[in-house]
Amino acid sequence: MTMRLVLSALSGLPLIRPGDDLVELVRRGLVSEAITLVPGDVIVLAQKVVSKAEGRLVNLAEVRPSEAAIQLAGEVGKDPRLVEVILSESREVLRKRPGMIIVEHRLGFVCANAGVDHSNVRGEGGRPEDWVLMLPADPDASARRFRERLAQRTGVEVAVLVIDSHGRAWRKGTVGVAIGVAGFPALVDLRGRPDLFGYLLQSTEVGLADEIAAAASALMGQADESRPAIHVRGVPYPLRDGSLSELVRPTGEDLFR
Amino acid sequence: MTMRLVLSALSGLPLIRPGDDLVELVRRGLVSEAITLVPGDVIVLAQKVVSKAEGRLVNLAEVRPSEAAIQLAGEVGKDPRLVEVILSESREVLRKRPGMIIVEHRLGFVCANAGVDHSNVRGEGGRPEDWVLMLPADPDASARRFRERLAQRTGVEVAVLVIDSHGRAWRKGTVGVAIGVAGFPALVDLRGRPDLFGYLLQSTEVGLADEIAAAASALMGQADESRPAIHVRGVPYPLRDGSLSELVRPTGEDLFR
Repeated sequence: MTMRLVLSALSGLPLIRPGDDLVELVRRGLVSEAITLVPGDVIVLAQKVVSKAEGRLVNLAEVRPSEAAIQLAGEVGKDPRLVEVILSESREVLRKRPGMIIVEHRLGFVCANAGVDHSNVRGEGGRPEDWVLMLPADPDASARRFRERLAQRTGVEVAVLVIDSHGRAWRKGTVGVAIGVAGFPALVDLRGRPDLFGYLLQSTEVGLADEIAAAASALMGQADESRPAIHVRGVPYPLRDGSLSELVRPTGEDLFR
Repeated sequence: MTMRLVLSALSGLPLIRPGDDLVELVRRGLVSEAITLVPGDVIVLAQKVVSKAEGRLVNLAEVRPSEAAIQLAGEVGKDPRLVEVILSESREVLRKRPGMIIVEHRLGFVCANAGVDHSNVRGEGGRPEDWVLMLPADPDASARRFRERLAQRTGVEVAVLVIDSHGRAWRKGTVGVAIGVAGFPALVDLRGRPDLFGYLLQSTEVGLADEIAAAASALMGQADESRPAIHVRGVPYPLRDGSLSELVRPTGEDLFR
C-alpha cells in the first residue's frame, strides 16, 4: 500500500474578522474540496486567522508605552507602542538588535517580536497602519475548541494544529511550527524502539507537530492568507492527545540562551 | 483549482549498501508507485541512504582517538573512537554535556554528534556495533549528481533534497532539515512583496527546503529506513537552483552561540 501524506488547502475562506465562525468556514472549505473527514485527519490553521477570529487585534493609538518599552524601542528602532505590546506578551527579552527583539513568549516558546505582527491586519476604525495582531491567548485551548466544535458539526474528531512561522537560532528562514495542539502527538518518543538491526534507539524524539506544521506552512505560503487552513491526511503515527508544552524546552535544559 | 501538496513514499527500496545505485532504486520505486515525474517535482532522500551508498561508513576498530577526543569522551561519556570521528567531522564544539556533543559541522550547520550515527548501520566484517555512519562528504554535490543522473534516465529534471533530522535550540524533538539541495530554492525571499492590504512585508524569508524536509521526514518515520525516499508534488513556489549555504546562518549573524 502506498504511504502518502496529502495536504489540501481549503479554498474560499474570506478575510477573517473578529467573531467570525472559523469552524463553519473550514467546514464549508472541506465541502468545497469534496473532503469527508475521517479519524486521523488533521486540520492545520494559520495563527493569524485564529487570532483574528478571536479578536486579538490591538490599536496602537490606544497603547501607552512604558518607560521600558520606550527605552527598548530606541535601542531597536521600533515604535514604542508596538514594543509595549511585544513586552506585554513576553516573559523575557533574550536578544535585541536593530529591527529585532527575540523573546521568550508568555506561552513559553522563543520567537521574534512575541509573534506580534503588522502584516495583513486591519481592525475597525483608526489608522489602518496602527493595527497589530497578537497570538491567540491560549492556542492549545483554541485548537481544542475548534476540534470539539468541528466534531459537533461533522461527527468526526480530527486533530487540530494552530501554527505560526518562527525563525531558528542557527538556520536562516522561517519555518512553520505548532503553537497550539489538540488531539495530536506534539512529540513522538521513539526511544527504546529497536532499529533495523535490533539496536535500541537512544535519543530520538520527533517533533511531529512541528514537522506537520512546516509541511502545512509550505502549502499556505506566507505573503497572504488565501490558504490559511490546510487539511492533512496520512500522518503515519498513531494519534493521541497532545499539547504545546511537549515542544517547549524547559529553560533549565536549554543550552542556547 | 485545489492546491495540494502530495508526498508519496517510494516503497521497495532495499537496505542500501556502499556502491548501490540509488538513482536506479528510486527510479524503480517511482515506477512501482506509478509516478511519472514532471518538472516541479521533488525527490527527498534520507541522508542515511545517501551516506551508505557513498560508503561513508567507519569501523571504530580502525579509529585511533586523539588526546582531545579521549578527554571529551570522558566528559560526555561516549566512546573515544566515536568522539574522534565526531571531531573529524566538526569545525567547533559548541556545547557538551553527558551524552551530548553539539558542534558546528564542517558543512556549516549546527547539529548533535556531527550527524555521526550508530543506528541502522552495519558494514562488512568486524563487530556489528563498531560501525558508524558519517554524513555525505558534500550533500549539495550528492543532490546535484542524483538530479543529473535521474534526469539522464527519466528525461525530467526534478529538484532533490538530502535531509537529516536535527534537534533545535529551544524546542524539543527533532525535525527534518535539508543538508543537501539541488534545483530547489532553499530559501524563499518574500521581502518587499505586498501583503493583502498593500503593506510591504519586511523580513519574511521562508526556509522552504527545511519545510519540505520536515514534511518528508514526517512520512519517512525515524525508527527504520523502510521509507527513505519521498516523492513530493505541488510545492507552490517557482523552483530555481539553490544550495545548503542559503540556510546556514553565518556565525557573525548568529545571536545564539
